[in-house]
Amino acid sequence: MTDGSQGLSRRGLLGLLGAGAGGLVVGGVGGAAVGASVASASATATEDGAVHPFFGDRQSGITTPVQDHLHFASYDMADDATREDLVSLLQDWSYAAARMTQGLDVSASGAVGGSPQAPPDDTGEALGLPASSLTVTFGLGPTLFEKDGADRFGIAAQRPAALVDLPRFVGDGLDPMETGGDLCIQACADDPQVAVHAVRNLSRIAFGRAKIRWSQLGFGRTSKTTSDQVTPRNLFGFKDGTANILADDEDALREHVWVAEGDGAAWLAGGSYLVARKIAMIIEQWDRQQLAEQGRIIGRDKAEGAPLSGGEEFTALDLDKRDESGEPLIDEAAHVRLAHPTVNGGVRILRRGYNYVNGTSELGRLDAGLFFLSFQRSPEQFVRLQRSLSTDLLSEYIRHVGSGVFAVPPGAADGSYVGAGLFA
Amino acid sequence: MTDGSQGLSRRGLLGLLGAGAGGLVVGGVGGAAVGASVASASATATEDGAVHPFFGDRQSGITTPVQDHLHFASYDMADDATREDLVSLLQDWSYAAARMTQGLDVSASGAVGGSPQAPPDDTGEALGLPASSLTVTFGLGPTLFEKDGADRFGIAAQRPAALVDLPRFVGDGLDPMETGGDLCIQACADDPQVAVHAVRNLSRIAFGRAKIRWSQLGFGRTSKTTSDQVTPRNLFGFKDGTANILADDEDALREHVWVAEGDGAAWLAGGSYLVARKIAMIIEQWDRQQLAEQGRIIGRDKAEGAPLSGGEEFTALDLDKRDESGEPLIDEAAHVRLAHPTVNGGVRILRRGYNYVNGTSELGRLDAGLFFLSFQRSPEQFVRLQRSLSTDLLSEYIRHVGSGVFAVPPGAADGSYVGAGLFA
Repeated sequence: MTDGSQGLSRRGLLGLLGAGAGGLVVGGVGGAAVGASVASASATATEDGAVHPFFGDRQSGITTPVQDHLHFASYDMADDATREDLVSLLQDWSYAAARMTQGLDVSASGAVGGSPQAPPDDTGEALGLPASSLTVTFGLGPTLFEKDGADRFGIAAQRPAALVDLPRFVGDGLDPMETGGDLCIQACADDPQVAVHAVRNLSRIAFGRAKIRWSQLGFGRTSKTTSDQVTPRNLFGFKDGTANILADDEDALREHVWVAEGDGAAWLAGGSYLVARKIAMIIEQWDRQQLAEQGRIIGRDKAEGAPLSGGEEFTALDLDKRDESGEPLIDEAAHVRLAHPTVNGGVRILRRGYNYVNGTSELGRLDAGLFFLSFQRSPEQFVRLQRSLSTDLLSEYIRHVGSGVFAVPPGAADGSYVGAGLFA
Repeated sequence: MTDGSQGLSRRGLLGLLGAGAGGLVVGGVGGAAVGASVASASATATEDGAVHPFFGDRQSGITTPVQDHLHFASYDMADDATREDLVSLLQDWSYAAARMTQGLDVSASGAVGGSPQAPPDDTGEALGLPASSLTVTFGLGPTLFEKDGADRFGIAAQRPAALVDLPRFVGDGLDPMETGGDLCIQACADDPQVAVHAVRNLSRIAFGRAKIRWSQLGFGRTSKTTSDQVTPRNLFGFKDGTANILADDEDALREHVWVAEGDGAAWLAGGSYLVARKIAMIIEQWDRQQLAEQGRIIGRDKAEGAPLSGGEEFTALDLDKRDESGEPLIDEAAHVRLAHPTVNGGVRILRRGYNYVNGTSELGRLDAGLFFLSFQRSPEQFVRLQRSLSTDLLSEYIRHVGSGVFAVPPGAADGSYVGAGLFA
């Protein structure tokens, strides 16, 4: 297999880079500048899918066409980690992510090019695989800035006012071990082995400085970010993401997704906020529900995803339309109504969730649901929507079991690293 | 999307079938004959991948080119289930599997074609998706024939002598809740949503008669069954499955995989035995090992998968070759040596495993490994190999945590069902 964007095999490209680059010292200093030379081009289509840029004004993995697979991981900094550890970690992560998103090994010596007497820099399971549209998106949690009153890394004063733990919502059943985290990584790719390889190697690079707190794999994207992507279905069998913000809707992105200069913390301008929610679905209960009732709960028909107020999938909802007996065609507590911008002061978010199945519970039920991911200009947008959904008919069939909120810095300039603005 | 083998949309084909077919009564009688008309063709290539036949001399999913994704599930029969329940379950499963493997909904009324006042037959998340090379392979565990001395289904006399629980192996750390089962389903597809949809709907059909005991998703096949498939890598970063039995090696299949007429139970002739092992990898420990040592443990080089005795990936192992100091180039306890036919009386198996990652353990380690699946003419083949591997250098880095052994009946004839021979 070849790295189509370069016309060189991974091996060959490593060889070319090796001379000037030097190996990545795992746990050491790294050098983000190395990655810049290979990862700053715009997205390149290849026969194996797109290669997305790592460096640029925005981090990839937000408006990027939603890939097929997810590995999301939340990390806690080590108890004895210093400010220098945090900076070097972010540098090393950017270096490695810049390489991996281009289909390269994690360092120049990679999986098989180092000393036989040393552990390889790269764990090797993605050897021979293309970039597979991999994006790696980094986020910073509230506790990174201040934890139990301590300013561990000298950045408490830089915390954006909006970056606080989410409030408790009606029906939350959060597992502390699937909630929070100082840092997060969203790795998305069209090949799950490539996404897993990214998180595994970034976790390895973090050794001694940060450790995974929780992680989750996802498959079957439940959103789309470009108009040519087919609307996928979630595990309730309904199309999901029909009304998402699309990558080419610059006005909506500016208004609802990107943090603006005047929004507060200057280092975050051009970035966004990520909300992650692990939403367990009570599958067996849903599957016993009537087809018509399923439609009423969602507010759309199951076959086409058309609103119950009429039309086709992309027809606008008519929330006021009533049947001959005066009942609203879209129920007052239907999911699409309560989540709709018109009943939430115009609030919208960019969703990027995935289906997940973690095998079977001890009761023989599928441990499955939706790993919800959304990007927004402020977490307040998610809070508003989630509060509106407190009376959602769907609530009976779901339970929020994990949660996280993260500031997502803007993209790194060539030769720099994600989060650099925080330490400028 | 269309069902490429028919040139009709799923919707359209359901409509055509609906008139003569009648709906599947979930939990009821079903009718395997219906599926026959759509699922007895040989494999058909479409732009969305192959459509594999359900009916035929052999079950699909054994020599079928290994798909990208797995959902494996083990089931226990209900405490009050009768022989009639077992027969009707196998009939209903075959009916539904015959449809789903052709890219159809689970029944003629499907996900959206039934009464609005009834729960849909099909859960809907695969609506619009192609068959995605789905295969559904059924197996029967030892406890189905006799459990705690009871012949629950009147088939104890039919149990093949070879179908007994696997012995305990050195290093086993089996979780009872990931071990055993009366029945199993191996669903493989190139789209995980399609594999998950199959297991979910077959579990739903089983309601009241059988219940999932354990299940596991897998991605990243670790074997190949045709010579044109690239050898994939496992999560140790090594190529896996180089020396597998291939689908076109009729002699090897006859000798090592298919149960022959004279092997014992006549109803199983033309079938096989499936061994499933959930093998946890101690990833972090492996990743700290030197490259040369990793190679020594496996007996191959990491880059190309070439045997350490020389040559390239497909060069035969030279187990006798020694270096200038007289040491064997392939270690006496290397994995490839201990698993090799020449040190195991010629024994071979057909492997079909997958990588798995179940998130993160409470220690912040990846909960990951290999979901090993092998097909063989007798479980004794696996037992011999696994005993040989008791001194395997790799043992330090793996732990077997789940296990199952199942008789895999031959394929169902058109209009019949898998396992029919057992009740003839």
